Amino acid sequence: MSHRIVVALGGNALGKNLEEQYLAVRETAEAIVDLIAAGNQVILAHGNGPQVGMIQKAMAELTRSDPEMYIPCPLSVCVAMSQGYIGYDLQNALREALFTRRIPKPVSTVLTQVEVDPADPAFLHPTKPIGAFMTKAEAEQLIVQRGYEVIEDAGRGYRRVVASPMPRAIIELETVRTLMEAGQVVIACGGGGIPVFRKDGYILKDAAAVIDKDFAAELLAESLEADLLIILTAVEKVAIRYRQPGETWLTELTPEEAEAYAKAGEFAPGSMLPKVEAAIRFARSAPGRTALITQLQKASAGIHGETGTRIAQRL
Amino acid sequence: MSHRIVVALGGNALGKNLEEQYLAVRETAEAIVDLIAAGNQVILAHGNGPQVGMIQKAMAELTRSDPEMYIPCPLSVCVAMSQGYIGYDLQNALREALFTRRIPKPVSTVLTQVEVDPADPAFLHPTKPIGAFMTKAEAEQLIVQRGYEVIEDAGRGYRRVVASPMPRAIIELETVRTLMEAGQVVIACGGGGIPVFRKDGYILKDAAAVIDKDFAAELLAESLEADLLIILTAVEKVAIRYRQPGETWLTELTPEEAEAYAKAGEFAPGSMLPKVEAAIRFARSAPGRTALITQLQKASAGIHGETGTRIAQRL
Repeated sequence: MSHRIVVALGGNALGKNLEEQYLAVRETAEAIVDLIAAGNQVILAHGNGPQVGMIQKAMAELTRSDPEMYIPCPLSVCVAMSQGYIGYDLQNALREALFTRRIPKPVSTVLTQVEVDPADPAFLHPTKPIGAFMTKAEAEQLIVQRGYEVIEDAGRGYRRVVASPMPRAIIELETVRTLMEAGQVVIACGGGGIPVFRKDGYILKDAAAVIDKDFAAELLAESLEADLLIILTAVEKVAIRYRQPGETWLTELTPEEAEAYAKAGEFAPGSMLPKVEAAIRFARSAPGRTALITQLQKASAGIHGETGTRIAQRL
Repeated sequence: MSHRIVVALGGNALGKNLEEQYLAVRETAEAIVDLIAAGNQVILAHGNGPQVGMIQKAMAELTRSDPEMYIPCPLSVCVAMSQGYIGYDLQNALREALFTRRIPKPVSTVLTQVEVDPADPAFLHPTKPIGAFMTKAEAEQLIVQRGYEVIEDAGRGYRRVVASPMPRAIIELETVRTLMEAGQVVIACGGGGIPVFRKDGYILKDAAAVIDKDFAAELLAESLEADLLIILTAVEKVAIRYRQPGETWLTELTPEEAEAYAKAGEFAPGSMLPKVEAAIRFARSAPGRTALITQLQKASAGIHGETGTRIAQRL
């Protein structure tokens, strides 16, 4: 049985710097091409934490070196750059792996914007630290000049914080769909997508925010009517009482069961919790939709029900 | 009469830094949407000189600040980042201009690689300075550690030089074609494309090179069977004896006439010469194909034969 699958790639799939990424995408590509070779239609979303961090740091160094010429670079522009950077490496690794297996499929990277709601409560309490550490003087300048929100981070210096609102719509959905229907492997929603507000129905304004890539992938999967969302992470299965006495690995869950565990505080915020929440959301979006959380290397076994944690409505 | 048009946008269309680009793309979008409103199919290619320069400088500052963590960033990666950065601003300006005119067309940016030939003679004589000025010590380190070619630039410091080979094939051509046929406005071949070598028929390796965006746009126009290539520049028409006594503006030329002027040294290398050469190449590629060189604001008048310099075979 073949599936339409959206895969959300995490940090482990991409590495932390230029050299790591170049190697990591090779292993990632092999696992993804396993899914394609089995007859599935695959669309990829991915994170960009270390990459956008690197780009922000580079752009901040540039501004530091010549503040007259280079204003601070908006976060949205850094995300756009990271989509180009990651897409380039990832699509070529996929091309190579497809070629080796004699699967003649084009691979494309689509620059993707994702709409967020200015009324999202996340904007009232920005919590996501981004970019390099700053001195107090640098931080105060950005607060005054640019209205940044800044926190003092446990004695290590000052960092900007931004909101992490929920994704509402994928602006380039038609592009992804057109390429998917033409039989392509599509990379989209890099880094959760470039966050934008919609103005007057159509015009887009950049939002100072980062979108969680698992929620962006979930929205992409819903919007493309995928039947399977695979969220790849560092562990083979989701656990309750993780790394504590009585640790129990989970195999099959309904959205209700997963939600009960989430409410009981079983999953770490900013780590497993958003993955489980995205999985719940996808499973609830329609009967017959399954979310699978597992490791990259276990993805193929996972879609055959051999491992991983599956969240789906009981039929 | 409607055309399939590839437009090559130059530096004037994009500005030199973040603030300039954000404003410049608005005026560019208006001129491009004039062409679309007249019923033409439009695909956009663009340069990236100042943008990729900015990104390289930023990445070099990053390496300077922490050489252990950040190796020098390959040129190809900087080009990929610039495609994300420019595509983001340009596609949103186009969306906005299309919306204002009530033209419901999606706009997409396609991450584009362009194949170059390792046997291209350009690789024997790298001539294109890129990136920031360096000290002699920094230059020598990069020569030894990375095999860079470096020149001393008129007492202002040291700069890396790379080759500017001819584009041979557009790797993501199928993607551009699929989206174009779906009625989209497509942005492709940013900065002349990410330069790559082809290995073993399919595998791509990054090339330390920059591809002239006018030649990349020409190849894109040929490959998509466009009938019109518009190369936008700072002047309304091409001139012979430019800024000299007897300056004469040119209106209609055959490829042979244009070539004779080029051979006589009428056009400045690195400026008007590559534009005229790209125009000649396109006009020669098939009867009925016209290349138009003009200013952004004159593009619409130019396609009606009212201004600009047109190069086409005499029918």
